[in-house]
Amino acid sequence: MSELFARRMGTVHRSFIREILKVTADPEIISFAGGLPNPDLFPLESMDRASREVFANIGASALQYSTTEGDAGLRTIIAERYAKRGLSVSPDSILITTGSQQILDIVAKVFLDKGDKVVIERPGYLGAIQAFSIFEPEFVAISLESDGPDLAELEQALQQGAKCFYAVPNFQNPSGVSYSLEKRKAVAKLMDTYDALFIEDDPYGELRFMGEDLPSVYSFREKPGILCGSFSKIAAPGFRIGWVVAESPFYEKLVIAKQASDLHTSTVAQAIMRRYLETNDIESHVGLIKERYGRQRQHMVDMIQQHFPSVVNITEPEGGMFLWAALPEGVSSMDLFDIAIKDKVAFVPGRPFYVDGTGENTFRLNFSNSDEQKIEEGIKRLGSSISTLLD
Amino acid sequence: MSELFARRMGTVHRSFIREILKVTADPEIISFAGGLPNPDLFPLESMDRASREVFANIGASALQYSTTEGDAGLRTIIAERYAKRGLSVSPDSILITTGSQQILDIVAKVFLDKGDKVVIERPGYLGAIQAFSIFEPEFVAISLESDGPDLAELEQALQQGAKCFYAVPNFQNPSGVSYSLEKRKAVAKLMDTYDALFIEDDPYGELRFMGEDLPSVYSFREKPGILCGSFSKIAAPGFRIGWVVAESPFYEKLVIAKQASDLHTSTVAQAIMRRYLETNDIESHVGLIKERYGRQRQHMVDMIQQHFPSVVNITEPEGGMFLWAALPEGVSSMDLFDIAIKDKVAFVPGRPFYVDGTGENTFRLNFSNSDEQKIEEGIKRLGSSISTLLD
Repeated sequence: MSELFARRMGTVHRSFIREILKVTADPEIISFAGGLPNPDLFPLESMDRASREVFANIGASALQYSTTEGDAGLRTIIAERYAKRGLSVSPDSILITTGSQQILDIVAKVFLDKGDKVVIERPGYLGAIQAFSIFEPEFVAISLESDGPDLAELEQALQQGAKCFYAVPNFQNPSGVSYSLEKRKAVAKLMDTYDALFIEDDPYGELRFMGEDLPSVYSFREKPGILCGSFSKIAAPGFRIGWVVAESPFYEKLVIAKQASDLHTSTVAQAIMRRYLETNDIESHVGLIKERYGRQRQHMVDMIQQHFPSVVNITEPEGGMFLWAALPEGVSSMDLFDIAIKDKVAFVPGRPFYVDGTGENTFRLNFSNSDEQKIEEGIKRLGSSISTLLD
Repeated sequence: MSELFARRMGTVHRSFIREILKVTADPEIISFAGGLPNPDLFPLESMDRASREVFANIGASALQYSTTEGDAGLRTIIAERYAKRGLSVSPDSILITTGSQQILDIVAKVFLDKGDKVVIERPGYLGAIQAFSIFEPEFVAISLESDGPDLAELEQALQQGAKCFYAVPNFQNPSGVSYSLEKRKAVAKLMDTYDALFIEDDPYGELRFMGEDLPSVYSFREKPGILCGSFSKIAAPGFRIGWVVAESPFYEKLVIAKQASDLHTSTVAQAIMRRYLETNDIESHVGLIKERYGRQRQHMVDMIQQHFPSVVNITEPEGGMFLWAALPEGVSSMDLFDIAIKDKVAFVPGRPFYVDGTGENTFRLNFSNSDEQKIEEGIKRLGSSISTLLD
């Protein structure tokens, strides 16, 4: 019956990362492969209390169908949190989504025709590549430098008719790279000049351990943009609550696409998240996460410097959950993966993050979900795997 | 910036029903327009208890990312419930979705190329029309008779190359019509003969007030089909938990499409639903719903017979949440809607349920979400509106 499949399914694959997570189910393996936040930091008691209060105070309407746009109170809180960080956004421009993955799906529905040119960072976020692929665009990969995208490559892509640019300017997944202030402004200007769409994904922006918070590219735009946010990394991902900020006329179309996709995001999940935010100080909770992840990131960088051969280059991210490593040119991180699994340590090889099939020598390490002891032992093991490979 | 929109967005519209719900926000209006289950019947206390137990017993992992396929325990319970009703299904063939609306989206992603012919009942379910429209198929509407689809029209559509048939064989939304046993078998056979895909949506099948439960069309197929289910009508919709049953190779592709759409359905919502099902007798809860909806349905039928002019024809559904009315040919239910709103009663005009633009004289009435007193008063008002219109 496979002749019934749509043509697009020939080019869309299961997430390679999710496949790796199966390999790494062995409890003896120290895994830096996942992209999971640290569950020890989930505000479990506060969420439990928020949940009880939702059942007691809101009752049946928390279990009923609700509006596609999302809970009005939750949208107001999101707008207020942006205001604190200097961005003025109306709650009416915020659409609640089923995690920020869903934003990518509905943005693709609204904007991508088959064959449209979509610019993406090299390496780029796998979830976006997967979501967009369903709509059969042509990806144009541009180099990601240590301070953001190569602007000449971006401009060239726009000159050649690219319709949009999807990027993660803060502590990017997979690379950990953040855009400098200058590049943020320059990207905004280029997108304005070419009337192109900038899809700004920002799940990690609040998790900065060092350096200074920088404004979104969205805030520098003169024309409408798309800004994506999520509670997955600052509260907990299991609720599947993200949001997209977009002005009219984008907003209305995104609502239509969201409605066709799943009617609305879980009413119960939204009610619990709203109550949690109303009755807890999430800023101090985010402070805890930053303190912990910052320590873990520092320890991973330190251990890499001690245990990796010096030919391996890494990024040193100022926030987020990931750092990025490059083996010497011509060395394959897939080969390293096979050795590392035998040495009981795992990571994600870089290839799937490159839409142009390059990146063979790179790999991603997650530092958010391992304590310092595991980081020490895991990086030792991985250093030894690398030495084996390079020998 | 609207030149950035994908071509598909030109033909996809916001749900007309959701727009109507805004008009009917006036508390003086008795509304038979919505498609809401009765919130008085939500198992609020049991869900509250289930939720507490999830926080106490499962803890942080209930707030973490989880698998795309869905909670294994929940899938087992769904399989066991099918087994009780005589259908043998493996938990490995069940994929948990964010409500059953999402099934329509992922099925369209997996199966529909632009221009593919999709057979749909006339009238047909609006959510499916909306979800499929994103993928730009060509709809072929076939007549829905009192015992199911016109089989000659179905065969003709299949002969002309239709790829799939989407249908709601039990107590259809909007018409309330159910397929007879003979038509179920005949549809299964036709779909097998033409190697076509049958997408069987069954959110209401357990809500039968009278007559005998009938097997799914899925159960009569010799080739793989798609069977959709939901907890929205038998527990509560605010969790957004549906599921799709599909064998390999359909299953794997649906998982890929689901992953690209929102990674996975809310872990918390799934955990609460699972715990609720493990610690409560949902069958007796469903019994309560059937008893109540059955009474409300009967009262609506009785009141219509008393208060509607005899030229109005209605279906007399054996289950579900809706019944369907037809004014004399040439009379517009949109005109009736305008009068009815002034008379403080609302319903959904039939036109949007017809992909071929017919159905002008029809309308849908919901009986699940109004008590008998409201039904009596609302149907009186609507009878008077009809008389005004026909005068």
